[in-house]
Amino acid sequence: MRGRGDRLERALAEAELDRYLVTDLTNVCYLTGFTGTNGACICGPDLRLFLTDFRYTERAAAEVEGWETLTIGNDWLKGIAERLQGRVGFEDDQVSVRLLGKLKEKLGEGTELVAAGGKVAELRRVKDDEELVTIAEASKLADAAWAWALEQGLAGRAERDVARTTEARIRELGGDPSFPAIVAAGPNGALPHAEPGEREIGRGELVVFDMGAKLDGYCSDGTRTFATGEPGEEARAVYEVVRQAQQAALEAICAGVKGEDVDTAARALIDEAGYGERFGHALGHGVGLEVHEGPRLSQRSDDLLAPGEVVTVEPGIYLPGSLGVRIEDLVVVEKSGLWNLSSLPKELQLVG
Amino acid sequence: MRGRGDRLERALAEAELDRYLVTDLTNVCYLTGFTGTNGACICGPDLRLFLTDFRYTERAAAEVEGWETLTIGNDWLKGIAERLQGRVGFEDDQVSVRLLGKLKEKLGEGTELVAAGGKVAELRRVKDDEELVTIAEASKLADAAWAWALEQGLAGRAERDVARTTEARIRELGGDPSFPAIVAAGPNGALPHAEPGEREIGRGELVVFDMGAKLDGYCSDGTRTFATGEPGEEARAVYEVVRQAQQAALEAICAGVKGEDVDTAARALIDEAGYGERFGHALGHGVGLEVHEGPRLSQRSDDLLAPGEVVTVEPGIYLPGSLGVRIEDLVVVEKSGLWNLSSLPKELQLVG
Repeated sequence: MRGRGDRLERALAEAELDRYLVTDLTNVCYLTGFTGTNGACICGPDLRLFLTDFRYTERAAAEVEGWETLTIGNDWLKGIAERLQGRVGFEDDQVSVRLLGKLKEKLGEGTELVAAGGKVAELRRVKDDEELVTIAEASKLADAAWAWALEQGLAGRAERDVARTTEARIRELGGDPSFPAIVAAGPNGALPHAEPGEREIGRGELVVFDMGAKLDGYCSDGTRTFATGEPGEEARAVYEVVRQAQQAALEAICAGVKGEDVDTAARALIDEAGYGERFGHALGHGVGLEVHEGPRLSQRSDDLLAPGEVVTVEPGIYLPGSLGVRIEDLVVVEKSGLWNLSSLPKELQLVG
Repeated sequence: MRGRGDRLERALAEAELDRYLVTDLTNVCYLTGFTGTNGACICGPDLRLFLTDFRYTERAAAEVEGWETLTIGNDWLKGIAERLQGRVGFEDDQVSVRLLGKLKEKLGEGTELVAAGGKVAELRRVKDDEELVTIAEASKLADAAWAWALEQGLAGRAERDVARTTEARIRELGGDPSFPAIVAAGPNGALPHAEPGEREIGRGELVVFDMGAKLDGYCSDGTRTFATGEPGEEARAVYEVVRQAQQAALEAICAGVKGEDVDTAARALIDEAGYGERFGHALGHGVGLEVHEGPRLSQRSDDLLAPGEVVTVEPGIYLPGSLGVRIEDLVVVEKSGLWNLSSLPKELQLVG
């Protein structure tokens, strides 16, 4: 993890910052390895300081690598403020208005807080080999849970039952769900963020099944849409549009491409088929320690893809009151092309 | 839930605010019932406005009660800003520095944002009957999971195995863990926030077992310390001090008492016994939609307890390298006394 502090230090130099204060716990974990619930980092030239309180002194000793650990006694903010000097960047996208006010009161003379959020998020976009292996393992675990879920059958069961038992299966396999699974059948499939309910999954329905596993802190994310028996012509047609749009987006991905252009590759096909209004969300997002992080694949994204970034590719079409289709792979951006971490087939599968 | 908006409106009048913007999702859920991941409320005289985006229009229709729902299209912050006027309180303890900056750019003339966080948290402290029943049920569910865990036995198993299987049991019983269970045996018990590890629980050790269940959004929280066979004289002595301190704190609780004084009731006994330095955390905290909320029971708490507040009472003694003891009940403050939601015995139990 030492390399991460060094990358952050270089980013600070570019932004002409003397110090950078990291308070977001996921960012702290990324930099130091610390997994407790109270910690902060101060990074600067030749400075790698990790701060926590007495509850976590021993955990920090076991977990934190490459950062000096300091336990703050009574006054947490004072303990932080005393160690800041010069132009100090802080995570303005994370720090609350109140916290900033309190911290400012405790600063020494000549110390200035500068809004500079996102520096660690920027680093987190590109994964190193160890991170990629972990995410690939998480994705494999989720695929195994899917295979198991399909063996149990979908039709005749409550959506919620399918979701909860599959989450339990993820845990049995040694992971955790990276978010509550979505199992949305028939008309519920038209709600992109449906919560699985008591509704029984019928025969001949499309079932949107979106889930992911978390392993050693890293998330996977994927979606397949299954049919519980022959779903009919319209459903098949919609499915085919989404499948082709997804394939087009995959083919558009490689290092250097803009997020907007990948989104467009899928959206153009959906537009052409007359469903443009029914694809109301972005094509994809980065995945890592959080299930939603940078880069973004959307119509408003200037993000240029870089090798080692991990993104979802998940076009969908949602017909209110009727059905929904979403197909989502998790892929690693490579110099030319991608490494697809999702192993499940994408032809429409008829399941029990 | 309509009553909650009315209570908030009264709080606004006292603070001379024309509108109050609620962006914290737990607070939004408390006021409106909405459980999605993007929503905000604006409250004012004769104004109960709930805002969300298109993904959640249908969920809002199903969940939100007593608030007018509006779906914001493209520009979320503009959609909010357009509906603010006059002196508008915002949750400065939740809103990030960046978000405030962006929101300010979109405000109309004459609209002023005033730091006024905590208004909903204040309302949430006192639970209504329905909330109390739910928390009592959650606590009962956790107690049942404990009983099950003890039947499986503790000695000879990895801490992590005990924690994970008990969490699975909570799910089987229809709840969710309200936080990752703590199972800390022998010297690990001395770490108040230990993460259950691979260490095998030995015979004759004290095991700190801290967990809670979540039901319909509401949390429980409790701790017992068990012995896997006779733990020895010192362990018994420490246990007895904690048990008596816990009892003293319970007896000190009733409406109108200061949080500090309840903490002192327990701390004085631990001090007297010579372990004052080994009780390094606060006595307790409120529990509700979040497992940590107001009021606080600590040496720095001016909070006056009120009927219907739900608090933990959890003194502990931690001897580094040796053992830990914590005993925690979840109780409802009543006019004179309390309603103890924890049903497990508090005499030291020798288990397998």
